[in-house]
Amino acid sequence: WQDYKVAYHAPMLDVHLKSTGNTISPGKAKGRKPRWAVRASEMSKKTFNPIRAIVDSMKVEPNPKKAMISLSLGDPTAFGNLPTNDEVTRAVKEVLDSGQYNGYAPSVGYQSCREAVAAYYNCPEAPLKAQDVILTSGCSQAIELALAVLANPGQNILVPRPGFSLYKTLALSMGIEVKLYNLLPEKAWEIDLEHLESLVDEKTACLIVNNPSNPCGSVFSKSHLQEILAVASRQCVPILADEIYGDMVFADCKYEPIATLSTNVPILSCGGLAKRWLVPGWRMGWILIHDRRDIFGNEIRDGLLRLSQRILGPCTIVQGALERILHRTPPEFYHNTLSILKSNADLCYAALSAIPGLQPVRPAGAMYLMVEIEMEHFPEFENDVEFTERLISEQSVFCLPATCFEYPNFFRVVITMPEEMILEACSRIQEFCEMHYQGAEGAQDLECDK
Amino acid sequence: WQDYKVAYHAPMLDVHLKSTGNTISPGKAKGRKPRWAVRASEMSKKTFNPIRAIVDSMKVEPNPKKAMISLSLGDPTAFGNLPTNDEVTRAVKEVLDSGQYNGYAPSVGYQSCREAVAAYYNCPEAPLKAQDVILTSGCSQAIELALAVLANPGQNILVPRPGFSLYKTLALSMGIEVKLYNLLPEKAWEIDLEHLESLVDEKTACLIVNNPSNPCGSVFSKSHLQEILAVASRQCVPILADEIYGDMVFADCKYEPIATLSTNVPILSCGGLAKRWLVPGWRMGWILIHDRRDIFGNEIRDGLLRLSQRILGPCTIVQGALERILHRTPPEFYHNTLSILKSNADLCYAALSAIPGLQPVRPAGAMYLMVEIEMEHFPEFENDVEFTERLISEQSVFCLPATCFEYPNFFRVVITMPEEMILEACSRIQEFCEMHYQGAEGAQDLECDK
Repeated sequence: WQDYKVAYHAPMLDVHLKSTGNTISPGKAKGRKPRWAVRASEMSKKTFNPIRAIVDSMKVEPNPKKAMISLSLGDPTAFGNLPTNDEVTRAVKEVLDSGQYNGYAPSVGYQSCREAVAAYYNCPEAPLKAQDVILTSGCSQAIELALAVLANPGQNILVPRPGFSLYKTLALSMGIEVKLYNLLPEKAWEIDLEHLESLVDEKTACLIVNNPSNPCGSVFSKSHLQEILAVASRQCVPILADEIYGDMVFADCKYEPIATLSTNVPILSCGGLAKRWLVPGWRMGWILIHDRRDIFGNEIRDGLLRLSQRILGPCTIVQGALERILHRTPPEFYHNTLSILKSNADLCYAALSAIPGLQPVRPAGAMYLMVEIEMEHFPEFENDVEFTERLISEQSVFCLPATCFEYPNFFRVVITMPEEMILEACSRIQEFCEMHYQGAEGAQDLECDK
Repeated sequence: WQDYKVAYHAPMLDVHLKSTGNTISPGKAKGRKPRWAVRASEMSKKTFNPIRAIVDSMKVEPNPKKAMISLSLGDPTAFGNLPTNDEVTRAVKEVLDSGQYNGYAPSVGYQSCREAVAAYYNCPEAPLKAQDVILTSGCSQAIELALAVLANPGQNILVPRPGFSLYKTLALSMGIEVKLYNLLPEKAWEIDLEHLESLVDEKTACLIVNNPSNPCGSVFSKSHLQEILAVASRQCVPILADEIYGDMVFADCKYEPIATLSTNVPILSCGGLAKRWLVPGWRMGWILIHDRRDIFGNEIRDGLLRLSQRILGPCTIVQGALERILHRTPPEFYHNTLSILKSNADLCYAALSAIPGLQPVRPAGAMYLMVEIEMEHFPEFENDVEFTERLISEQSVFCLPATCFEYPNFFRVVITMPEEMILEACSRIQEFCEMHYQGAEGAQDLECDK
């Protein structure tokens, strides 16, 4: 979600993390002469965005002869080719005209808006009522609240590798340990279930399942989701489902909200308007509480209510528009977005598959695609960071090195750009790879490939 | 800010704080049979809204013969008599039409919007540039970020008594100790400077100064602010200035942002659109960083940047409208709001002053007024909570007992209602007091007063 900032705002941020502790000013004790010594808190120092740190360290200039193409921004609005639907903006304008949504909402959101979200996502297998919905300032805050209510400092959470960096950023800032479970690229990024289960211990507070996945663009099958639920059920670990890309899957595959398959595992499902309605900046997110066996009970609900009072929920004019947005957005809008994404995914996959030394993994949803770099064929580069660095300086194409997602030797490509831009980017990546590729028997292999 | 919820949403919240520790499920250890035991985190349990707890405990029914009048809601939009200005909503509609503000903004806000806020509040005595402004999801998040960057668990902050409850709610949830310094009603709620200074110790992370004040409606003079700064300077304690009611002062007095008077004390000033522009639900706040002696330095700025990445800033369509809102709102709008508040304050003060057993303190700004209950004249009631409870059950008038602000034997009145409502409320309060007042020589004094 916030990847784009690394490209636009790196210069303004001077990240210097210190490993030393926060020294409290000794000067304020009575009888001693106070002196100024204001230090940033431990928590602020533990709040660490790995993408920013990695990208800031890259410090490369694009090739001045080529216009920069950034395939790194997880913001579908960045290129102007994927506007939101008119009904979405119209709904907010109607709310503004009404003058009825300028005051404080309850910290968990207006009752009527919670009802609208509950009704929209309600289904027989996973029923939802207004009290099961907590509106948040974007899906980021939904994840923050869910983690904050489920885990104590010293506990651990299970996080996918590769996975979205915010989970770790939030967890570490709260003193929660992160245990990374593997996704398997050869199985379309399914979870290595044995590895997952081996990580559970008595301090495991929750399992984060991100489906459809950022950065993988993968979509779990019903049977795989059932296998994941079986692990959670056996180990009695609640699930934090990051489903911000829910319903964003290509026509040949089906999205199943994990809660619809759960018979006992309690689930906090995090979502929002950001991706499907193409308004990430509006910061409208939610937590859906699924707890059919009353395992969360009042305990977790009350905790979420209390935590929500810290900053008082999302912008009311977007809240007020929610019901209209959910009901009036025409189905063609969603279909159109997905058909563009699918077409871009196919285009990008085909183009990158043809490049020596690269192994893209075909996505089935969301808006990303992961590409393996066969590092043995690029002996010039030490790792994915160096590879993507040089791709910027030579070809002015910026892809995020997957080290940002704890997954070295891959890079992530965003597929929301206009077709021409994807083609141009892939052609430059091809030129770059052909330039640096070294075959098994040395440089002459490159010649054969040409 | 969030006071109103106590009136509207008490039933949905079942606050039961446990003093026992959070027991981690013992069932997940390998080789043992796991069992479900999901507990809300310590932090969620430490996040405690005293207003809610007190008001929830009141459990009273209004008098069915009288329509409820709530003077408890710190939401100026609640009564419909104080709409925001048309230019404010028009600015957001223009932003929606532009389609240019739907994507992610930097987590600290768009550069252009930070510039707009900096330009608006910039002055020679306290210059501001874009990099000195951090946009937040309401003033609540501004205060949260400011506290989170300045204080570590185990440190303490100095908080006014009476004072807005959010400071304590946030601090305790972060493990920060709260030390309450006294305000003096007999000196128009100026700070007891000696008491304030006596509380500073080597663990004091910051001093919160709330001016104009919620709940007091008081406004500090220039010379008093200079005295406060002298304490902070002598003790080397940075200031967190809650100036959300900045500029909301009545004609006969002047508001001075504390940063304009500081020569060395570094200040984080928190503000937002909520009160002055009458759109609290929009969640548009900011931190202004004043650090002329480079005491915060990059340390605190970087910390704020990192912390802001947790939930990614305020709604972009409000951000995008900021510059227009700040420039186009006609001065008459602000004047009109203040003249209504001033007229209501005068009305309310006059009416309550005439009531036996009550001692209102005249406000000079913001939208509140504090009233002392001479408890010795109301022997029927044990305290302000019981007094206000009975005021509901007999007269259907709801005022917040000032125990909510750590200040027993007072209650707070909101002065944003229409004039008729204020008059009706004051007349019912008068009836109530006359009914229960006991003079020094007993009940017959009440007769004399009549």
